[in-house]
Amino acid sequence: MLKVGIYGASGYTGQELLRLLLRHPQTEIVALTSRRYAGVSVSDIYPVFIGLTDLAFIDASPDDVAGLADIVFLALPHGVSMKVAPVFLKAGKKVIDLSADFRLRDVAAYEQWYGRHTAPDVIKESVYGIPELYRDDIVTARLVANPGCYPTSAILPLAPLLKDGLISNKGIAVNSLSGVSGAGRSASSELSFVEVNESVKAYKVGAHQHTPEIKTTLEAIAGSSVSITFVPHLIPITRGIYSSIYAEIRNNITAEDVIRSYQKYYSSAPFVRVSESAIPEIKNVLYSNYIDIGFRLYPDNNHIIIFSVIDNLVKGAAGQAVQNMNILFDYDETEGLL
Amino acid sequence: MLKVGIYGASGYTGQELLRLLLRHPQTEIVALTSRRYAGVSVSDIYPVFIGLTDLAFIDASPDDVAGLADIVFLALPHGVSMKVAPVFLKAGKKVIDLSADFRLRDVAAYEQWYGRHTAPDVIKESVYGIPELYRDDIVTARLVANPGCYPTSAILPLAPLLKDGLISNKGIAVNSLSGVSGAGRSASSELSFVEVNESVKAYKVGAHQHTPEIKTTLEAIAGSSVSITFVPHLIPITRGIYSSIYAEIRNNITAEDVIRSYQKYYSSAPFVRVSESAIPEIKNVLYSNYIDIGFRLYPDNNHIIIFSVIDNLVKGAAGQAVQNMNILFDYDETEGLL
Amino acid sequence: MLKVGIYGASGYTGQELLRLLLRHPQTEIVALTSRRYAGVSVSDIYPVFIGLTDLAFIDASPDDVAGLADIVFLALPHGVSMKVAPVFLKAGKKVIDLSADFRLRDVAAYEQWYGRHTAPDVIKESVYGIPELYRDDIVTARLVANPGCYPTSAILPLAPLLKDGLISNKGIAVNSLSGVSGAGRSASSELSFVEVNESVKAYKVGAHQHTPEIKTTLEAIAGSSVSITFVPHLIPITRGIYSSIYAEIRNNITAEDVIRSYQKYYSSAPFVRVSESAIPEIKNVLYSNYIDIGFRLYPDNNHIIIFSVIDNLVKGAAGQAVQNMNILFDYDETEGLL
Amino acid sequence: MLKVGIYGASGYTGQELLRLLLRHPQTEIVALTSRRYAGVSVSDIYPVFIGLTDLAFIDASPDDVAGLADIVFLALPHGVSMKVAPVFLKAGKKVIDLSADFRLRDVAAYEQWYGRHTAPDVIKESVYGIPELYRDDIVTARLVANPGCYPTSAILPLAPLLKDGLISNKGIAVNSLSGVSGAGRSASSELSFVEVNESVKAYKVGAHQHTPEIKTTLEAIAGSSVSITFVPHLIPITRGIYSSIYAEIRNNITAEDVIRSYQKYYSSAPFVRVSESAIPEIKNVLYSNYIDIGFRLYPDNNHIIIFSVIDNLVKGAAGQAVQNMNILFDYDETEGLL
Repeated sequence: MLKVGIYGASGYTGQELLRLLLRHPQTEIVALTSRRYAGVSVSDIYPVFIGLTDLAFIDASPDDVAGLADIVFLALPHGVSMKVAPVFLKAGKKVIDLSADFRLRDVAAYEQWYGRHTAPDVIKESVYGIPELYRDDIVTARLVANPGCYPTSAILPLAPLLKDGLISNKGIAVNSLSGVSGAGRSASSELSFVEVNESVKAYKVGAHQHTPEIKTTLEAIAGSSVSITFVPHLIPITRGIYSSIYAEIRNNITAEDVIRSYQKYYSSAPFVRVSESAIPEIKNVLYSNYIDIGFRLYPDNNHIIIFSVIDNLVKGAAGQAVQNMNILFDYDETEGLL
Repeated sequence: MLKVGIYGASGYTGQELLRLLLRHPQTEIVALTSRRYAGVSVSDIYPVFIGLTDLAFIDASPDDVAGLADIVFLALPHGVSMKVAPVFLKAGKKVIDLSADFRLRDVAAYEQWYGRHTAPDVIKESVYGIPELYRDDIVTARLVANPGCYPTSAILPLAPLLKDGLISNKGIAVNSLSGVSGAGRSASSELSFVEVNESVKAYKVGAHQHTPEIKTTLEAIAGSSVSITFVPHLIPITRGIYSSIYAEIRNNITAEDVIRSYQKYYSSAPFVRVSESAIPEIKNVLYSNYIDIGFRLYPDNNHIIIFSVIDNLVKGAAGQAVQNMNILFDYDETEGLL
Repeated sequence: MLKVGIYGASGYTGQELLRLLLRHPQTEIVALTSRRYAGVSVSDIYPVFIGLTDLAFIDASPDDVAGLADIVFLALPHGVSMKVAPVFLKAGKKVIDLSADFRLRDVAAYEQWYGRHTAPDVIKESVYGIPELYRDDIVTARLVANPGCYPTSAILPLAPLLKDGLISNKGIAVNSLSGVSGAGRSASSELSFVEVNESVKAYKVGAHQHTPEIKTTLEAIAGSSVSITFVPHLIPITRGIYSSIYAEIRNNITAEDVIRSYQKYYSSAPFVRVSESAIPEIKNVLYSNYIDIGFRLYPDNNHIIIFSVIDNLVKGAAGQAVQNMNILFDYDETEGLL
Repeated sequence: MLKVGIYGASGYTGQELLRLLLRHPQTEIVALTSRRYAGVSVSDIYPVFIGLTDLAFIDASPDDVAGLADIVFLALPHGVSMKVAPVFLKAGKKVIDLSADFRLRDVAAYEQWYGRHTAPDVIKESVYGIPELYRDDIVTARLVANPGCYPTSAILPLAPLLKDGLISNKGIAVNSLSGVSGAGRSASSELSFVEVNESVKAYKVGAHQHTPEIKTTLEAIAGSSVSITFVPHLIPITRGIYSSIYAEIRNNITAEDVIRSYQKYYSSAPFVRVSESAIPEIKNVLYSNYIDIGFRLYPDNNHIIIFSVIDNLVKGAAGQAVQNMNILFDYDETEGLL
């Protein structure tokens, strides 16, 4: 059994990791840390786990956890992961970091959006953890930077079409709708039921920290600059991201061209479901690690619209992290995820 | 025009008062206080009011506001109202207090549930503001204690039947469901969308501070002790209270007896709608000052179930307060409320 | 008092018209037709109206209603309005049609999207009822074609910028989210709570019947062809439309240019609220006739994103219809709507 | 591998059975019938299953399915199950019926609530499928009558206390709140999002067909008559039942007495979670086969309130059916359900 630690396990992402890892046939959870809930059993805080686990949260140093686990998931805020990841790497442990700390290659870009980076040397160790695009790098990685939820929903549908030159690298608009769990588990009157229910709002327009992650990843894939306008919206659902992506098509492409491009890159990807006809719906991916992709061509307007849906806590966070773990340890990629 | 002040105007109750008073043909709002938002225009905080009012919040002492207004609504937390109400009364102003501070006659009972009372002498000045039951007292009152939302939903349907002896005063169970706005506007992870959505929970079981308000009011009406088990539940809606009330019937009463009792007390009450056949639904009273009442007899079990619905922010708070103001100043009881 | 009829009054739009007209100080409702509910009082079907009106639905011919009313609102499905509107016009009555039957100038376009038009001659009588753009024509109109909900949310924010040449007429994308009441009151498993809740789906992509209404109206305003990609999505809220509109900017325009353009056209429009800073939220317009507009420039991408929100049943249907009635009969434009 | 058929597989219960059985390690699904969708693959109708199964719906006679399967789940409307169940029994197959057809021992009672029973002789073959109460009978049963969702939520918390005489058998009130999936997958305007959202209503008050199932089961357990007032309410959530049960206590019982009674009957029941302190919340049991039970004593009123929560589609239907299958075939009771 693989010994697994979750460092910072009390938020929504930590909970979801726990849910997935408890039913994973190859893993044993050896440490769940939480400063706030140290000494309290998980099921006291989250009664959903009563009967499923007797684990308690511990307050343990990275060194302590490194002594227990073969692999550690960091479910920490950005700025904190960068402090503990080096400890685990030094101890020869694998790390999957669910924060943003190691996603951007460019320290300056990171610092512009997130604040000072205190472990810039570690960034180059990291592999960006979208398995469908970087599987070979992940196999041998020591540190996986697990992608953001919005970037997962935008990069997977765009990457093939940009790489194959089917769409323009200019003027792409990503209109994303997110459930409220994407904002994390915090006491905020803005996220209260009364404020969110029966409403919609765009937020951090032009200023969401996932923007450079989407842009630089796609630029690396396209091999050229990519201009993206990304607009997240908060909608009254608990889980799920719906991205509607507008792009200009090239060379009078057809639906067959689009399908062929997706097949080229994703035909063996177990969690990517592309449809020629159906338009994705969030309910089809809830609690699953799938990303569903659909699209429509508007040849008159020279436009394509691509739709993607994921569960932000699964394919957008904990599920993709487990998928990365499966690859790191040579389990079946879908182990524990179907 | 009646000069009106709202003291503590930044919460959900304050907002709702503002919404109602802005369209009331007889009132002019002369002061809206908020320490937190002092100097900021209301529509900057609540864009719903853009174009409807140019008012700004002010930070003003009770004395200042007493100098401006003929009547003051106190939309303050309990424990705070008792400090400012005496100032307005001394200045000869009418006061409608939406907190719990003057609802209980018995200081000891108040202190058991809420904490120390610093103005016990003022309590006897106050009139409990359910117009359908205490209209005559309200007409001449200087201080109206506006009822709690749950008590309004429980007392109005029970009072006639208890008074007329149609139901037993023992073993009454009040099962209430409330929308989340009833908990006020505060930053709490318990009230976050993710925690509340797609769930239900009973809370403060046996310990909700509205229990003595319901019990003592009904005892005064029934002229005997009344045993009530009151259980509030939080459900994922923004507004509304649904109370399902179980009681033992007396003397093989019929549906006609029940209807007759309601007619006796409420035939001229413009906001009480009783149906012999329809079961109330929350959507029928949203944004209105109505209370809808329905019922079913279970003669085999010797039970009656009475259902009531209100909008917790209107008939359960701000609307009832405006109704009380209309009575105090001899306007039509429905002015500004239809 | 103006005598008003509502022809086809049993759906959500008919209900909303009734709600608004009951509190309009200048109108008296003289006929409410519904074949299905003929003879039944409105409050039996919609208990929300108990105490507010004693009206009953009637099954009356257009001729009968023409004999009673000065103005008739048609809240009928498309294809039906075209059959009854001519009767009212012939009788010299004013008509505000809330269906799509008289919105498109071009019969062929109508027939492509909706089916056969049996009153093509009447189309040229009609005036497209967005008061902020066609006020002068509405003043003297006999037949007002009340706009669709999505078109209202797209045309009002785009018209000034297109007219003033601030944005390109090519490559505009309108990403709209709608509450479920926009789909009308029908028994459909697709609109059931279980199917809609906790999900999102784009629908009728590239095939929504509002597409030509948006496009041809904007082309008339811009004086040139306009290419629009319009994608509606269904989200789990009851009311409201959120449109996020992506367009290419021209000539390095600034936020001041955009504001100036909106002021030029809407400075005296009582229901258009434009903000330089705030991003619109649906909750700010619910149950109101306002449209809130906000925007952000992305100069690096040469993009502007414009956001608009309306209540689909008010500014998107019944409220705008009442606004048109106010203009037709020279009442204050906001009468009954604030 | 156990060969399993689902007869009538296209509704919410059928879907949920499919979801659970696809991940059950001991079962192979050999037939999924649906007249409406015959020949269509499951994942075309329910895209959630894309990648998880290639099964298609078939239109097959009971005889055909009996030739393929060792056990058949009947997810049919009441009145239909009684027609097909005898065919499977005759063929020597095990049957788990999720309709009401074989739940009531008394044919007359069945016919009073549901209509004519055409297979009364088969009723006595059936065992009522609450494993926590009837495990020994289920082991050897040929036909399991899988309980209704409301009865499961009411019987499990009440049975121990009635059997041990801790509460009175008179005057019990069961106030239940249900998510909308409990009403099945049908096109009904009453179940549309707009009608259900932001509202609550009690329905079938005194007339819900689950009433005799609750009453007669509890009477058999208590060994005496039991008077129950059961009131179901529809609330705007997709899944889950919340039952708040009011009963009169006997002999000044304490919380310890209550806990001891639950432990006596459920200490080895893997899906019953009883808490002395926590009040149940629906979110803790969603998508799981657990029933969570909590309670509070009100000694002053001589009342106990017991709370229970289940997922109506799992413990209230498909999950309990799989649990029964596990018992019938001597698998671990929790197989496929954790």
